[in-house]
Amino acid sequence: MRRGFGSDNHSGISREILTAIGGANEDHALAYGDDEWCARTEGIFRETFGPEAKVYFVFNGTGANVLCIDAMCRSHEAVVCAETAHINVDECGAPQRVVGCRLLTVETADGKLTPELVRTRLHGFGFEHHSQPKAISISQPTELGTLYSLEEIRALADLAHSYNMYLHMDGARLANAAVALGKSFKEMTTEVGVDCLSFGGTKNGMLMGESCVILNRVLDVEMKYRRKQMTQLCSKMRFIAAQFEAYLTTGLWRRNAEHSNAMAQLLQKEVKELGVRVMYPVQVNSVFVQLPADIWHALQKEYFFYDWDEAQNVVRWMCSFDTTEEDIHSFVASLKRLL
Amino acid sequence: MRRGFGSDNHSGISREILTAIGGANEDHALAYGDDEWCARTEGIFRETFGPEAKVYFVFNGTGANVLCIDAMCRSHEAVVCAETAHINVDECGAPQRVVGCRLLTVETADGKLTPELVRTRLHGFGFEHHSQPKAISISQPTELGTLYSLEEIRALADLAHSYNMYLHMDGARLANAAVALGKSFKEMTTEVGVDCLSFGGTKNGMLMGESCVILNRVLDVEMKYRRKQMTQLCSKMRFIAAQFEAYLTTGLWRRNAEHSNAMAQLLQKEVKELGVRVMYPVQVNSVFVQLPADIWHALQKEYFFYDWDEAQNVVRWMCSFDTTEEDIHSFVASLKRLL
Amino acid sequence: MRRGFGSDNHSGISREILTAIGGANEDHALAYGDDEWCARTEGIFRETFGPEAKVYFVFNGTGANVLCIDAMCRSHEAVVCAETAHINVDECGAPQRVVGCRLLTVETADGKLTPELVRTRLHGFGFEHHSQPKAISISQPTELGTLYSLEEIRALADLAHSYNMYLHMDGARLANAAVALGKSFKEMTTEVGVDCLSFGGTKNGMLMGESCVILNRVLDVEMKYRRKQMTQLCSKMRFIAAQFEAYLTTGLWRRNAEHSNAMAQLLQKEVKELGVRVMYPVQVNSVFVQLPADIWHALQKEYFFYDWDEAQNVVRWMCSFDTTEEDIHSFVASLKRLL
Amino acid sequence: MRRGFGSDNHSGISREILTAIGGANEDHALAYGDDEWCARTEGIFRETFGPEAKVYFVFNGTGANVLCIDAMCRSHEAVVCAETAHINVDECGAPQRVVGCRLLTVETADGKLTPELVRTRLHGFGFEHHSQPKAISISQPTELGTLYSLEEIRALADLAHSYNMYLHMDGARLANAAVALGKSFKEMTTEVGVDCLSFGGTKNGMLMGESCVILNRVLDVEMKYRRKQMTQLCSKMRFIAAQFEAYLTTGLWRRNAEHSNAMAQLLQKEVKELGVRVMYPVQVNSVFVQLPADIWHALQKEYFFYDWDEAQNVVRWMCSFDTTEEDIHSFVASLKRLL
Repeated sequence: MRRGFGSDNHSGISREILTAIGGANEDHALAYGDDEWCARTEGIFRETFGPEAKVYFVFNGTGANVLCIDAMCRSHEAVVCAETAHINVDECGAPQRVVGCRLLTVETADGKLTPELVRTRLHGFGFEHHSQPKAISISQPTELGTLYSLEEIRALADLAHSYNMYLHMDGARLANAAVALGKSFKEMTTEVGVDCLSFGGTKNGMLMGESCVILNRVLDVEMKYRRKQMTQLCSKMRFIAAQFEAYLTTGLWRRNAEHSNAMAQLLQKEVKELGVRVMYPVQVNSVFVQLPADIWHALQKEYFFYDWDEAQNVVRWMCSFDTTEEDIHSFVASLKRLL
Repeated sequence: MRRGFGSDNHSGISREILTAIGGANEDHALAYGDDEWCARTEGIFRETFGPEAKVYFVFNGTGANVLCIDAMCRSHEAVVCAETAHINVDECGAPQRVVGCRLLTVETADGKLTPELVRTRLHGFGFEHHSQPKAISISQPTELGTLYSLEEIRALADLAHSYNMYLHMDGARLANAAVALGKSFKEMTTEVGVDCLSFGGTKNGMLMGESCVILNRVLDVEMKYRRKQMTQLCSKMRFIAAQFEAYLTTGLWRRNAEHSNAMAQLLQKEVKELGVRVMYPVQVNSVFVQLPADIWHALQKEYFFYDWDEAQNVVRWMCSFDTTEEDIHSFVASLKRLL
Repeated sequence: MRRGFGSDNHSGISREILTAIGGANEDHALAYGDDEWCARTEGIFRETFGPEAKVYFVFNGTGANVLCIDAMCRSHEAVVCAETAHINVDECGAPQRVVGCRLLTVETADGKLTPELVRTRLHGFGFEHHSQPKAISISQPTELGTLYSLEEIRALADLAHSYNMYLHMDGARLANAAVALGKSFKEMTTEVGVDCLSFGGTKNGMLMGESCVILNRVLDVEMKYRRKQMTQLCSKMRFIAAQFEAYLTTGLWRRNAEHSNAMAQLLQKEVKELGVRVMYPVQVNSVFVQLPADIWHALQKEYFFYDWDEAQNVVRWMCSFDTTEEDIHSFVASLKRLL
Repeated sequence: MRRGFGSDNHSGISREILTAIGGANEDHALAYGDDEWCARTEGIFRETFGPEAKVYFVFNGTGANVLCIDAMCRSHEAVVCAETAHINVDECGAPQRVVGCRLLTVETADGKLTPELVRTRLHGFGFEHHSQPKAISISQPTELGTLYSLEEIRALADLAHSYNMYLHMDGARLANAAVALGKSFKEMTTEVGVDCLSFGGTKNGMLMGESCVILNRVLDVEMKYRRKQMTQLCSKMRFIAAQFEAYLTTGLWRRNAEHSNAMAQLLQKEVKELGVRVMYPVQVNSVFVQLPADIWHALQKEYFFYDWDEAQNVVRWMCSFDTTEEDIHSFVASLKRLL
């Protein structure tokens, strides 16, 4: 397939990850997480997110998100999120089916919730006809490639906690946020009041492997049964743990994220020079642009990428850990030719 | 961890599988199954199971089983299965939570259903107070290591179809059954009337990767949405497909299964010589034995394995694709010392 | 409790209904709907809605709505509805828990969907990451007391059917709509393309009893099991059927609805004379007004009623089949005193 | 329909109940339970079951049972019950769909669980592959018309509590048990350790109306949301409360139950004289008999009743609050003629 900007999961696996998988392929290990790789990597998560952090490895982002929601909410409760949130738009209703709860969506300008926006959904407490708001979920970075500052996260956490609610962060691309903000994972999560986190690696060079990280121990109740019952328990779990170990201890997460972010900056720079309108601040590894319909249709014949908002002629281009400058030059050359 | 007989998922990954993963790590590929590895491997599944076969790759056995059940049943319907079936005992209620249906369990002597046993659950059709039987589920081999003959499977398929029901096969260890019976996968499934199949590779040398194989196209309805909504859609799916490709085309499935079956025969032979009672015919890679409680408790201090029926002092020993004769000799020596 | 305008389910039971219940209290009848009252009333529903109509009696409006949704959608599918829809706001997430599907909500000016508004949610077909739109749900009258014309319903039905979707109508107060529009139940439903209907009686003088009416026989699949499994099967069902029989055959539905609608007109007239702003056209039995916060807070000390939009100081007043002119004069006198 | 012995819900409504409904039909009352009838009847439940008792009125027995299970269990947990339990056999899988949990069934001789039988299901605690046993559910009387003594209930409660589990009682016919044992409702429930109770009235003369009674306040968590979300919230709830008020304060429950129990004794006596085999001790209002197939088939042509175990030729006859001696004589005469 032609290399392009369709998604950061179109790229393969970082070399370090393959090495780690091979390295974990020694002899026998107990299944389902009771092995030395998991034990070691759980320790790495505690170092990364704080001593209270408890990680549950899962297969994919949907699993991580649904497990986090299940940790926070019962079926009569609700999660406030942006209309553009992955949990709302891109899970085919997994939270509804698996947890049975409601999502209370808020329209946003840039994919980011604010306390003011969230408050529009905080009513009906104690009224049995209404699903009870129990969590706020944000994506860092958002699905539009925008970032919350630490202060903004803290403000949402404070709001959540003042209502006896929890703050969830969908961190499928948290590494990209970390390098963009120059902040550690812990500064962006535990230290600003995040209660539980979907922490991903697949979009940043891992084979497959995501995690539900409980930061507020109040939520760490019977999680192992929930993970199993929702089909997310991996038998040879050491091979997920080993990936995360390599990801977190070799600097891979940082190298890959820095690279994909930098490529997005380059891509943005080059398309702006062509006069293309970039829709949102490019803060991580995605570039959203508005293009005449005939242009992006023609470009899609050469390269795979998603239209984001067909009505507005907005399309999304994602850079990856293995995107090269050459990839960008070729792509921009095609675009230039079509314009 | 000390090598032992705890489970066939305590072993790691076959070399061929690691090679296949590395080989698929080329450049970019579309995510979620729309790639050349998946296309090729889907073809291999059609060759393996017949031209009507449609494969849906998933992460694990729970996912494969629940997706199969969801293909066959709505929530007001029911699956007839053995009390010992993995879907009944070992999924922490995943079918109930995700599909919402009932399992109608039958006590068996050896883990195998028969038409007579199934018929005891076939009543209440049309009566809205009763869950409506819609599928029969069997495991091949069973959880007790026993095998259905082709005729026995056909008889259950015929029974199912005569009631407008479906026959599901949990084939987490189907390779072990195939080599034991000297039959092809197709002979054991499509040709004897199986409607859908959980076909696994993880317990026989793969890293992770299972599949829901629809053999009766009537069931192939909106499966992709169900897989996604139940959290079982893999983004970098080529790496599951590539494993199955190597598994099915290099003879790996056969080599590994022949080996683990042979090791179980050796284990059985050696423990029988010690006078230990073997509970069920050893047909694949598991050996169930009855031992005095103090003996198996002492042995568990040296080796990890599961008690199967504590009340009856029955324990389970599983051989794996990488079990060695030396592993068996050491283990039996320990047992001999304790007896 | 002081008579007021809190809700049309604060009033009791019409005399004709009590008589009907007493009349059905003869001797024995088969349970669960297999009785002569049900048979007769099913016939009345066919006369009322057309020969294809199939009625399923249930206990309450939540049951009727959830059963209708379950008839139309599987869990990976979605229902497009107004943000203000009862199924979205006032069921505590019952559709999500029981059916597991998503609701795709649309902001509206007056509680009414239009084809243009619905189209904003009709995308992602065939894309497994998105819940698949499968139904449009409208309330007639809406939760804001507004009405769809027959042409408007037809347009939504046509839109739905052009996408292989269904049109559901929440008719908890359908009688009020019928008398306001001067149309029969059939003209408002079957004849303009409605596929299934929640048809209520409780808010218009019945004791308890609602119904799921399937108008498109394609949807009439295994409904009896769904009703039972979602806990909505009534044992002594003759007493629900008998209520509907009296409701539909004695003209009670019309008398009660005409009365409550007329009372709402009177209430509107009187409060407008006080200079109070009425928010929406008063078409049925509800009056939404905007009042200074201190006024409605003070009035709530004397009378129970719901604030509808606290931020906008909008409150809702409902008239009932037993509202009297005197009730209105007293209420308006209190309001006048406070203003 | 010809009067017979099909079920105790084939009879209609006791006169006292109709009177109570009419009596509650005064003026306006708040909906959803916030009215004086509910307040008063909640007090009556506290007098009946003890000061800690909290009642949630629901529509039917399925609703009461599922709400009780939802109070006790999350989806990864399980309820131990008899194979013959109504929650297992006769709810069309409602617990599985609505709660998502498993039922761990036990074969019994007479519909009664014992600590020994329950213990066979109490294993796998802490093992995430197994649903975690969290409740024991018994029916008093059982579905076979047998009764638990107070000591037997206490023993099951003690067993449950020793495992940090709860004891649920399905008391759809609890009045029949109370008069048979000569014990109060409280003695049979609260005083012997029952944690929550499905308490019914419909089968003993009420129109419709059942209840979930929480006896262990630990379980009284967010129950009102659960009731609403599972579609069991009644709007004009005063009419359920008023029925229970009359049922509990006028001695109706006792009169009706004494009568139906006595009729079952008479029926038993008369059929025994014909040499018919009665299967279980007749302790309440049901009589199970074994008859040659041709006889009960012929009898079913004249009278409606259920076959209970077709394979064993066992059928069930239920007496009701309005069964007359004449009903029995006619029925037995028919039987005699056929024999």
